[in-house]
Amino acid sequence: MTLTASVVGASGFAGGELLRLLSAHPEFELVQATSREYENRTVGHVHPNLRELDLRFTDPAELDGVDALFAATPHGVSMANVESYLDAADTLIDLSADFRLDSEAAYDEWYDGHTAPEYLERATYALPELGRDGLEGADIVASGGCNATATMLALKPLVDAGLLLPDDRVVADLKVGSSEGGAGGGAASSHPERSGVVRPYAPTGHRHEAEIEAQLGLSLSFTVHAVDMVRGAAATCHTFPTGAVGTVGTADLWSAYRDAYEDEPFVRLVAGGGGVYRYPEPKSVAGTNLAEVGFAADGERVVAFAAIDNVMKGAAGQAVHAANLAFGLEETAGLTQQGLHPVGSP
Amino acid sequence: MTLTASVVGASGFAGGELLRLLSAHPEFELVQATSREYENRTVGHVHPNLRELDLRFTDPAELDGVDALFAATPHGVSMANVESYLDAADTLIDLSADFRLDSEAAYDEWYDGHTAPEYLERATYALPELGRDGLEGADIVASGGCNATATMLALKPLVDAGLLLPDDRVVADLKVGSSEGGAGGGAASSHPERSGVVRPYAPTGHRHEAEIEAQLGLSLSFTVHAVDMVRGAAATCHTFPTGAVGTVGTADLWSAYRDAYEDEPFVRLVAGGGGVYRYPEPKSVAGTNLAEVGFAADGERVVAFAAIDNVMKGAAGQAVHAANLAFGLEETAGLTQQGLHPVGSP
Amino acid sequence: MTLTASVVGASGFAGGELLRLLSAHPEFELVQATSREYENRTVGHVHPNLRELDLRFTDPAELDGVDALFAATPHGVSMANVESYLDAADTLIDLSADFRLDSEAAYDEWYDGHTAPEYLERATYALPELGRDGLEGADIVASGGCNATATMLALKPLVDAGLLLPDDRVVADLKVGSSEGGAGGGAASSHPERSGVVRPYAPTGHRHEAEIEAQLGLSLSFTVHAVDMVRGAAATCHTFPTGAVGTVGTADLWSAYRDAYEDEPFVRLVAGGGGVYRYPEPKSVAGTNLAEVGFAADGERVVAFAAIDNVMKGAAGQAVHAANLAFGLEETAGLTQQGLHPVGSP
Amino acid sequence: MTLTASVVGASGFAGGELLRLLSAHPEFELVQATSREYENRTVGHVHPNLRELDLRFTDPAELDGVDALFAATPHGVSMANVESYLDAADTLIDLSADFRLDSEAAYDEWYDGHTAPEYLERATYALPELGRDGLEGADIVASGGCNATATMLALKPLVDAGLLLPDDRVVADLKVGSSEGGAGGGAASSHPERSGVVRPYAPTGHRHEAEIEAQLGLSLSFTVHAVDMVRGAAATCHTFPTGAVGTVGTADLWSAYRDAYEDEPFVRLVAGGGGVYRYPEPKSVAGTNLAEVGFAADGERVVAFAAIDNVMKGAAGQAVHAANLAFGLEETAGLTQQGLHPVGSP
Repeated sequence: MTLTASVVGASGFAGGELLRLLSAHPEFELVQATSREYENRTVGHVHPNLRELDLRFTDPAELDGVDALFAATPHGVSMANVESYLDAADTLIDLSADFRLDSEAAYDEWYDGHTAPEYLERATYALPELGRDGLEGADIVASGGCNATATMLALKPLVDAGLLLPDDRVVADLKVGSSEGGAGGGAASSHPERSGVVRPYAPTGHRHEAEIEAQLGLSLSFTVHAVDMVRGAAATCHTFPTGAVGTVGTADLWSAYRDAYEDEPFVRLVAGGGGVYRYPEPKSVAGTNLAEVGFAADGERVVAFAAIDNVMKGAAGQAVHAANLAFGLEETAGLTQQGLHPVGSP
Repeated sequence: MTLTASVVGASGFAGGELLRLLSAHPEFELVQATSREYENRTVGHVHPNLRELDLRFTDPAELDGVDALFAATPHGVSMANVESYLDAADTLIDLSADFRLDSEAAYDEWYDGHTAPEYLERATYALPELGRDGLEGADIVASGGCNATATMLALKPLVDAGLLLPDDRVVADLKVGSSEGGAGGGAASSHPERSGVVRPYAPTGHRHEAEIEAQLGLSLSFTVHAVDMVRGAAATCHTFPTGAVGTVGTADLWSAYRDAYEDEPFVRLVAGGGGVYRYPEPKSVAGTNLAEVGFAADGERVVAFAAIDNVMKGAAGQAVHAANLAFGLEETAGLTQQGLHPVGSP
Repeated sequence: MTLTASVVGASGFAGGELLRLLSAHPEFELVQATSREYENRTVGHVHPNLRELDLRFTDPAELDGVDALFAATPHGVSMANVESYLDAADTLIDLSADFRLDSEAAYDEWYDGHTAPEYLERATYALPELGRDGLEGADIVASGGCNATATMLALKPLVDAGLLLPDDRVVADLKVGSSEGGAGGGAASSHPERSGVVRPYAPTGHRHEAEIEAQLGLSLSFTVHAVDMVRGAAATCHTFPTGAVGTVGTADLWSAYRDAYEDEPFVRLVAGGGGVYRYPEPKSVAGTNLAEVGFAADGERVVAFAAIDNVMKGAAGQAVHAANLAFGLEETAGLTQQGLHPVGSP
Repeated sequence: MTLTASVVGASGFAGGELLRLLSAHPEFELVQATSREYENRTVGHVHPNLRELDLRFTDPAELDGVDALFAATPHGVSMANVESYLDAADTLIDLSADFRLDSEAAYDEWYDGHTAPEYLERATYALPELGRDGLEGADIVASGGCNATATMLALKPLVDAGLLLPDDRVVADLKVGSSEGGAGGGAASSHPERSGVVRPYAPTGHRHEAEIEAQLGLSLSFTVHAVDMVRGAAATCHTFPTGAVGTVGTADLWSAYRDAYEDEPFVRLVAGGGGVYRYPEPKSVAGTNLAEVGFAADGERVVAFAAIDNVMKGAAGQAVHAANLAFGLEETAGLTQQGLHPVGSP
């Protein structure tokens, strides 16, 4: 069986990563990549890692009929085009935030409303480690956001185990790479201004809070910092589990995290031990669909960590994972890339 | 008036920075730099920025008599040698943690005890923005630690203004450069392993907590991450001021921070505004003795930021600042270096 | 058919990369990884990308019998142990310089002699793009060195086309990443000293000159600089082809390079065109076994460029490529990893 | 005596550095900074290191009368405005290439001609280490370019000593930081694309060749690579001195370089010795007006190195140095900043 796939918004970073994954995927055949700006250029012109690929960008207004259409477009584009996407494809896998929340009211509160609210109910949120219900056969898949993914993977085992309760205090302090700013970027993304930074760029009120609250039932305080790497998102979640004060120990935490993830193909637990790499680090998973997840505890606090490649597990890899599930394929198909060691600032 | 000064432990990073500052200081004359490992080599052999300096490392066992002895040695060396340091110098300015806490009990709790507890009472803690009492004429000055300095500069205005109370929840999430690991380093500090990291290296129980609790009366949760820069420490303090929930606004915060720091020569407030640089960033103060301090508020949380150069305001610059005060000199003498723009990962 | 393979020196960077490649190779089964220092630790303890691998380091003194033994040991170790390696394995693939030159005299001139010169004649040099003669069935394979590989891939088409003659002037200016310094490293490799450098570390007399002269018949001037990346080697070869002065144009060069490499699976030509990526860049091939090769010409000079991942095409990938050829396997088996875009300093 | 100074083009990187230097200069009073884009914003809005400076950008069309006008504008702006600049100021110090060559013919050959050729004769080229003739009292000073400065400082001693003759082969291989691309930048300067590169961006035909040929009488082959740093330019000059083949040794080179630079306040010779820092490195001089210069020799080649901070010695520092000479001030006035150690990628 071969399924056809197209990528809309293929000149961006997540779009390029989709091209990388789909062009080597055992079940999908990549048939179209759109880009208004680079129409008729080869995809290798923009993505130098894909020079061998014999494919040119086409006009997003002329979509081929496909089994799966991956939309890697800026916020607002998918909701404006959802009808034509669904005309062209059996399944839309959307990487933007346009279909992640489940009600128009939520978009009114966190964004500037929604222009196609009638489709919200048809959309299935996809962060498979949180649950796979409804993904098989879904016609709109809303792939989880990068910072929310890292945060929720760190916290989910604490919630599942009843250690973390809805009203417990949670602070999520994120450190992310420059690829989150997207291709092009402005002055803040230029190399001289962006190099070597520890830059708080969303100190309060980040929109991913909404996604996390909807999925995990937790209200949390969220702050994002830009640091000097290109790929990667690392979440440090400082939690204060009132029901577990002074009683939760390392063994309980190992138990909670193993219960949550022992069957997950893309989660790797890293918590202590010797050597250089003792806790989750984004560079250990760069280029892969893996998430490293770990924890540490002191008297009244549990610190939960997660590290992902924001372009992979935080975007394109997660979308392909969701598509594998939507079409009933092997979950890990096309997603078995290994990480590198040593590796710099990937 | 010229005062003589020596640096013990001068081949390390803080020691080298002391040489840089003292060799250009208008009131101190640098007369000795010790290093067991590099005895007889020029200081420029180790510190390439100081090649013009006509000075060679000498044996730390043979100390010249000086007005001020700066000790930039690893933990434990100063307490072992305090007597000989005080024999050689009128004033000891110690950059290690050996005299920062005020009781033997505290060293038993946080460290492996103390070998010269009788000197603890004579020592004056120095982070001048917290208070200058007792610094003039002090004979042992315990210069504040880098991560504690960043954290306390962020929080102090909230404490002073009564917004943050002793039992309020405070999470300090630190991001620091590789120079904190010291010269030499091991495998974890090697460039291939250390480049591009977001690495939690002290997830819980960092010793700086003791220093902060002693100085600010706050109990806090402290986690330190290594990130890809050489100089710099950035503290993001997530605070939950129970007495100010829902009432504290940006104007109150500006007022609190201005009250705390308006006369401070080394503090620069940065909170919002437009452009690329809206909050404190270590690279904006690299090479200087400045601290950038700022804040943001949402409903129930105040996020307080501070960024310093850990080798300067977090070590050598702070020590020279303290020495200026101890000897009754102009506070800013020798500490007026400007930052750079653009600058990479300084 | 499955062939068994072992890696001696498996805790180093090239050794770890061999583990990565062999553990996912369709024809080799990885059965042993040795490390004196980390005996009994899992390979994931040292190489965090290989945490899923169920394999522990063993004592290099106790070698399993295998089809292929890959030696990734420091200079001198392979020549001291060649006998036991050949006892254990049908084929030794050596990644060091110990068997790259073909005579004891050459080792006397460029190194400190050779302790097993009787094996030199049995060794086959392997940089497959220079020639595959003798590789099939070889029992000692001397895999080409990283800097020599980049340099020779840039120059070979000019030699083949008769544009560059043996006495023509060639300057090779190399820029390399910190992984070339190996795991561990000393002060010069520590992050604070190694970050942000452009550091000439072998201004003249680099030993790779010998390898290049032996293979290409060119005498060249070779200078190596450390720059801020972890993986990667980029060669800029400034050549002055006396026989082609003023006559050689871009079309001739395209012709020469296409002739040389059109059937090569691991060479990608990149020379001009628009966009950001116009010439070979190491980061475009990081993590892959690809070499990017390109050129530019002015009146009397041809500048030839090549960029590789020194750990892959410059070490482990090249060795696996050679092993594929030695055992008559598909050349590209296990070596089809894709590069990333964007990617930082891989 | 206080001289007034203005900076035109003050929101760029060289312009900002001029503000830094002039605001702390003992003899100049900074009275105006122009920027069309940021008119009325504080200079600290763009240059975070200058937040303490009480100065706002003004319209470049309304110039104050000053003693010295520094123009840090893109190529072509100074030639278009030279008349109004000279109306406003006694002395124009131009940092662009607009007045570096001495004839309209040269601008026709290397650029797109010149719109104010009648001023070319009045301009004095300024790279003080090459000669100070004509600088005192000059009314148009053409400050030397960054890459040309590094290259010429490396080569000049060889020319002066008669070791390098006009027809000798010289290859200059440059490695430069991202600040050379200027503020703003495009896609190629964005952090994700620019991080970790070794990118040949001017493989042949760089315009600085013209400047070098005019000043040193050498014809050379020039290739520029972008590497991962922000500030810095490093020149590696591979020279083949026909008159000195096989006879020139290290002692001769030391003698040549000492003769050339022993009285130069901004040149530091670095050639061999032990330790980590053996040859010129840009990070050792970052933030300073110093040039590190060094050399190494093998049989027939002399490799000459120079490293500068392109924003300082390659632009703003050189311009202030020239202004000091033009006004008869102490040469080093305002230019005694020290470098840092350790420092990352400054």
